[in-house]
Amino acid sequence: MEKLREVGKPVTRVDAYDKVTGRAMFADDLCPKPCLEAKVLHSTIGNGVVKSIDASEAREVPGVVGVYTCFDVPDTPYPVAGHPWYADTRSGKRDVMDRKLLDARVRIYGDNIAAVVAEDSVACDRALAKIKVEYEEWPVVYDPVESLKGTGHPVQDRCPDNLVAHTCAVTSEEDLARNGYKSVDEALNDPSYHHFRAHLETAEQSQVHIETCVSYCYMESDKIVCVSSTQIPHIVRRVIGQALGIPWGDVRVVKPYIGGGFGTKQDVHFEPLNAWLCTQIGGRCVKLEVSREELFYATSGRQPKTFDVEASVGDDMRLRARSILAYSNTGGYVHHGHALVLNSVNSFRWLYHTNEVASRSEAYTVYTNGPHTGAMRAYGVPEGNWAAECLMGDIAHDMGWDGVEFRMKNAIREGFVDEFTPGGVIRAHTCALPECVEKGRRYIGWDDLKARYAQEEGPVRHGVGVSLFVYKTAVAPFALETATAALTLNQDGSVQLQMGATEIGQGADTVFCQMAAEAIGIDTEDVHITSFQDTDVTPYDSGAYASRQTYVSGTAVKKTGETLRRKILEYARFLHPDAQGELDLVDHAIVDVVGNKVCALPELALEAYYNMEHNDQLHAHETIQVHTNAIAVGCTFAEVTVDMPLGKVTVDRIINVQDNGRLINPKLVEQQVHGGMAQSIGFGLYEELQVDPKTGRVLNPTLLDYKMPTMMDVPDLEAQFVETDDPTGPYGNKAVGETPIISPAAAIRDAILDATGVKFYQEPMTPQRLFEGFKREGLI
Amino acid sequence: MEKLREVGKPVTRVDAYDKVTGRAMFADDLCPKPCLEAKVLHSTIGNGVVKSIDASEAREVPGVVGVYTCFDVPDTPYPVAGHPWYADTRSGKRDVMDRKLLDARVRIYGDNIAAVVAEDSVACDRALAKIKVEYEEWPVVYDPVESLKGTGHPVQDRCPDNLVAHTCAVTSEEDLARNGYKSVDEALNDPSYHHFRAHLETAEQSQVHIETCVSYCYMESDKIVCVSSTQIPHIVRRVIGQALGIPWGDVRVVKPYIGGGFGTKQDVHFEPLNAWLCTQIGGRCVKLEVSREELFYATSGRQPKTFDVEASVGDDMRLRARSILAYSNTGGYVHHGHALVLNSVNSFRWLYHTNEVASRSEAYTVYTNGPHTGAMRAYGVPEGNWAAECLMGDIAHDMGWDGVEFRMKNAIREGFVDEFTPGGVIRAHTCALPECVEKGRRYIGWDDLKARYAQEEGPVRHGVGVSLFVYKTAVAPFALETATAALTLNQDGSVQLQMGATEIGQGADTVFCQMAAEAIGIDTEDVHITSFQDTDVTPYDSGAYASRQTYVSGTAVKKTGETLRRKILEYARFLHPDAQGELDLVDHAIVDVVGNKVCALPELALEAYYNMEHNDQLHAHETIQVHTNAIAVGCTFAEVTVDMPLGKVTVDRIINVQDNGRLINPKLVEQQVHGGMAQSIGFGLYEELQVDPKTGRVLNPTLLDYKMPTMMDVPDLEAQFVETDDPTGPYGNKAVGETPIISPAAAIRDAILDATGVKFYQEPMTPQRLFEGFKREGLI
Repeated sequence: MEKLREVGKPVTRVDAYDKVTGRAMFADDLCPKPCLEAKVLHSTIGNGVVKSIDASEAREVPGVVGVYTCFDVPDTPYPVAGHPWYADTRSGKRDVMDRKLLDARVRIYGDNIAAVVAEDSVACDRALAKIKVEYEEWPVVYDPVESLKGTGHPVQDRCPDNLVAHTCAVTSEEDLARNGYKSVDEALNDPSYHHFRAHLETAEQSQVHIETCVSYCYMESDKIVCVSSTQIPHIVRRVIGQALGIPWGDVRVVKPYIGGGFGTKQDVHFEPLNAWLCTQIGGRCVKLEVSREELFYATSGRQPKTFDVEASVGDDMRLRARSILAYSNTGGYVHHGHALVLNSVNSFRWLYHTNEVASRSEAYTVYTNGPHTGAMRAYGVPEGNWAAECLMGDIAHDMGWDGVEFRMKNAIREGFVDEFTPGGVIRAHTCALPECVEKGRRYIGWDDLKARYAQEEGPVRHGVGVSLFVYKTAVAPFALETATAALTLNQDGSVQLQMGATEIGQGADTVFCQMAAEAIGIDTEDVHITSFQDTDVTPYDSGAYASRQTYVSGTAVKKTGETLRRKILEYARFLHPDAQGELDLVDHAIVDVVGNKVCALPELALEAYYNMEHNDQLHAHETIQVHTNAIAVGCTFAEVTVDMPLGKVTVDRIINVQDNGRLINPKLVEQQVHGGMAQSIGFGLYEELQVDPKTGRVLNPTLLDYKMPTMMDVPDLEAQFVETDDPTGPYGNKAVGETPIISPAAAIRDAILDATGVKFYQEPMTPQRLFEGFKREGLI
Repeated sequence: MEKLREVGKPVTRVDAYDKVTGRAMFADDLCPKPCLEAKVLHSTIGNGVVKSIDASEAREVPGVVGVYTCFDVPDTPYPVAGHPWYADTRSGKRDVMDRKLLDARVRIYGDNIAAVVAEDSVACDRALAKIKVEYEEWPVVYDPVESLKGTGHPVQDRCPDNLVAHTCAVTSEEDLARNGYKSVDEALNDPSYHHFRAHLETAEQSQVHIETCVSYCYMESDKIVCVSSTQIPHIVRRVIGQALGIPWGDVRVVKPYIGGGFGTKQDVHFEPLNAWLCTQIGGRCVKLEVSREELFYATSGRQPKTFDVEASVGDDMRLRARSILAYSNTGGYVHHGHALVLNSVNSFRWLYHTNEVASRSEAYTVYTNGPHTGAMRAYGVPEGNWAAECLMGDIAHDMGWDGVEFRMKNAIREGFVDEFTPGGVIRAHTCALPECVEKGRRYIGWDDLKARYAQEEGPVRHGVGVSLFVYKTAVAPFALETATAALTLNQDGSVQLQMGATEIGQGADTVFCQMAAEAIGIDTEDVHITSFQDTDVTPYDSGAYASRQTYVSGTAVKKTGETLRRKILEYARFLHPDAQGELDLVDHAIVDVVGNKVCALPELALEAYYNMEHNDQLHAHETIQVHTNAIAVGCTFAEVTVDMPLGKVTVDRIINVQDNGRLINPKLVEQQVHGGMAQSIGFGLYEELQVDPKTGRVLNPTLLDYKMPTMMDVPDLEAQFVETDDPTGPYGNKAVGETPIISPAAAIRDAILDATGVKFYQEPMTPQRLFEGFKREGLI
């Protein structure tokens, strides 16, 4: 790969000093104090309707400014998902509108039915306790398959059968016939091949970011201003406008630094209610801060899913046919809806593909009375990967094949084209999966460990496992990918960069600065970035999700940088009409065609501001649209110790080796991978939002009861890379942010299988489940 | 004049609701509390040096964070004036750098010699009281003529003779010879003509805005952020950079709503010190709020000046020769320096011009140990107008001429060209002065009153007076005039306007919205303006001064609006390739060449954001440079009651009639004129910063002792207009903001002369001075 000037450097993140010293400002830091506070009354039933609310006593609590119930708010449904919007109403791409600010129809336990505004949070709590609610209660349905059988009262009137969506992509009859089959099932059950099947389950994982969801709203001039801890300020603007029924231009959203999001903040949970409450009290500033407990049950976690997977495979290790049937439990509201499970079944299919022989990916998304679900890091892909890799692990184990060799025989590789997915064609322009796997295999000492642990006996055993992953960068070609960036040349020759894309802890600001510097021809330290978004002045971008920012928003940065560079050179030509040949910008200086320095960039910048004859504040503002995709791939190798009587798995060593295209900033990518690996260890072994299926109530909405890995549970995390130069990404990059959360869980599962021979299908593999599994198999 | 869509409408100011309800945010509202506070130690001598400072006891005061003296700060001189900067160091246009953050060389009483940072203002005050300073004290010189004779220690080392600048523009020898003269003095004393002379004085007026100077600074990312109550955020950015010796791009200045400026806040008084103090305490937020008392002596008022004026005039009422000699007392520092007195002598010359016969305008600006001086509304012009109109009043009175007729015989008129001013040619493209004067004369009933009051006797008399004015809009062609604006189309078809030009209470935001709406073809209410400037994201503009914003920044708005309109129509063409003929934007809709609606603007806007094939966040960002000028003119007519024994003048009726070109918003212009007239009544009758010439100490730095007119002292103020359509201004506008402060004082002086026959030459005409004058003339 060509060496670049700024891209590829492990520069220190631009927000490091502020965040380490504590001077970085988050929403609550910025909120003027004292301010009014708002709190929400949540339903204590899981299904039914609010018949009446008596708030008279609550209104008498000292300090209470107002109590607002589901009978006071506008009866306007709106969508909450952080998805692009669509101009064309016929596209069918607009998100479902099934939320209201407050709703008398209770669909889930903890639904929002009233709100209090008071002078402090104590007064809020006292008032909440005094609100009397009369319900009509109906039975709760939590299982999606049960829900599809019909409920007396549909969860949402728009879906009488509770079915949000059902899709099924099947190999065409022509392709089936070409291989001698009439159906996928026939291919799966072809007696010439070995047939495998499994039923799998994945739980609702919670994002558990440090900063909860918090916003504050006030009115200013002709606008409602909402300062929010969000990943998607421009979408928050739209949704507030939609929910309140006001022009979107009358809403201004500001996003300061945020303490993590991982997808929670890709939904617009409470900002519209906060904004509406503000309008009810004359525009006074009111803050709505979600508690840690509410975060678990009143915002959205990873959709729980079940999978039935099947495959047939030949003695040559080649997969012949594959099928996946998924049920996704969206809870009482759609939020991100069917897109999540589509990501699961697509990534299942892409990783090991038999599309042209026999493939079926079928998915249901179902309304139930379960808790909210929505986006979480990797957005359905870890679940699909769990399904794909459990099955591959089983096959390798049962056939006595080497798991690495078997996987690599069937895995996605460079040049892969998938025309199978409705909505667009996917291509792997680059794919260093073989190199990644080889690197990981060597690092972990695959063959040695396999041999060493093969004959272990006794209650404590060791194993080694592998899992591959595939992740399609961003949402194109299935959905709109657009981004805008703006750059201005300062008087001192530095530039100011403005992005609608958001820094949410992942390091986006730093890589944007590097890419801008690269495009212009200056040092990264000469790029200042405006980290806070303010929809009034920030270029449009849909925000942080789908590992889209470096790829999509980075394309906007690159184009904008190139435009600014061109404008600088044009202005240099005005200043130096006699300079020889084509001008260039090299090392902060304008040089002529033979490389002689014409002037320094700071000199030019001063002229651009203050030249008495012709000046121009040099500025570039570019919108781009991305129609391509890029496929990031990689693998995890894990070595574990399994204490069967204790039901305890210790991850001793673990490595992710990834092809994320060109690494814009290797240090930041490594940090991303560390975080994702830890979160995947949580996904595989610990994390599960437990729901009482009878009431729909979340049983463990606290950090005491919701178990996530701490530093004590996570070994040293090894991250290595094989760089490729993807032709579609700006400076060759592909997705990074979500990729490391995909494969570790399945690799641990594979290592447990290796250690014990026991197949686990339900994630997380908690001590209870492990213990039961080992007992069932007679190992303890 | 052609009727326009939005320009010319008396729309309500866009900040009205926020300012009336108190929800508008000013610097101190925004400052996070609690924050550190900084206060400055001012010298208690008027000339000398600080030999030593003992701050040991001050540092022990509880709550004190740090004490910093003139021996601690960088030894870096910097300029403080709100002037454009210049790329070309050879232009000689860069402002003098003669200030330091703190300075051991004490030049004025109250100079800044140390600063305290503490946890609250009480701790600051206690610490200030404990700082011990040892001075070497030198004699104070306050009179500029005395100062020019030389002082033992020059006020500034750069000027051993204390002369900041001396200029003299004289009619060329050829022109003099053509009229038969060898010199201007010969023309003045030509015995064929009547010769008049006078010596005049104008005092230092203080701006007395409601909000004092306040800023707070903190560090964020790689920047020092300064939130300041300023008229000139982009210049504050530059000056902080210069003063601290850091790249300007490392400074971010935010300007919220401000409570008036009138020129005080066109200087960068304390922001650099505030920023530097912030850097000394690890970037913690520290606020520096100037007290009302400090505002009088530690910021800058109107330069006190003396004038010697002469004229010769023929029996035909035609002026033959004119001369003005001005001395301006800049105090210990240059600040705006010679530009102020140049404005005085230029406006003297332009109003009644004899340049081509015999004219001389000579001016000195002199360093003394007097208090700071700088910009104040109309920037030297009221003083020059006082000089011009006192002389004209004297001539008319002594010659028994009608003051209106005499003035109009000689006044500036349309087509006036002045090539006499070094640095550029001035033209009056439009000039409705005759119509203005006729309107004012009729309103006041000039002839009737003249007749009615002619024969009055006794201690209380009445009179009527007139004064004309001329004001050149903005600073071109003598200095750089540039402005940038940005406009973005929102999803709802509204637009967001960003200006570097500042709302300082004058209504700028509102007229910018009107002009943007006009240029685009939408309603003013569909233009949202970002009122707060933030130099990181706000287009460059030098700010609010010289009545430049509607004229210069308005040119940028118009161009930017036209560019956005063009981009909208180009995008409409993409959406509707088959639409007939050239497209147009009319009433929020795209129409084809025959006027049929193609689509609504909000529909187009949604496509521009979300079209899946080609989208573009439509945005325009345009820098303009203005080389033209426009001449605003007008007059004041005043009727007064003079109680001679009490030395009391009551303004009974007063009217300004002005030609400000086309009025963008008649309601706002009327409000501007009311404010200016009241301030000119203060200038003429009440306001004077009194200085002890022996010590240089300001004797009346409080609102108890500094007398300004209140509602009780000001009659109903009548403002009328004669509109012209100036070809140079955007939508035909010319200066408004400063024009009404120019002529009322001299009209009152003229009315007193009419009532009593007594000529007053010293402004303000306080009861003491009036009493002494009437006594001297034997009237009491």
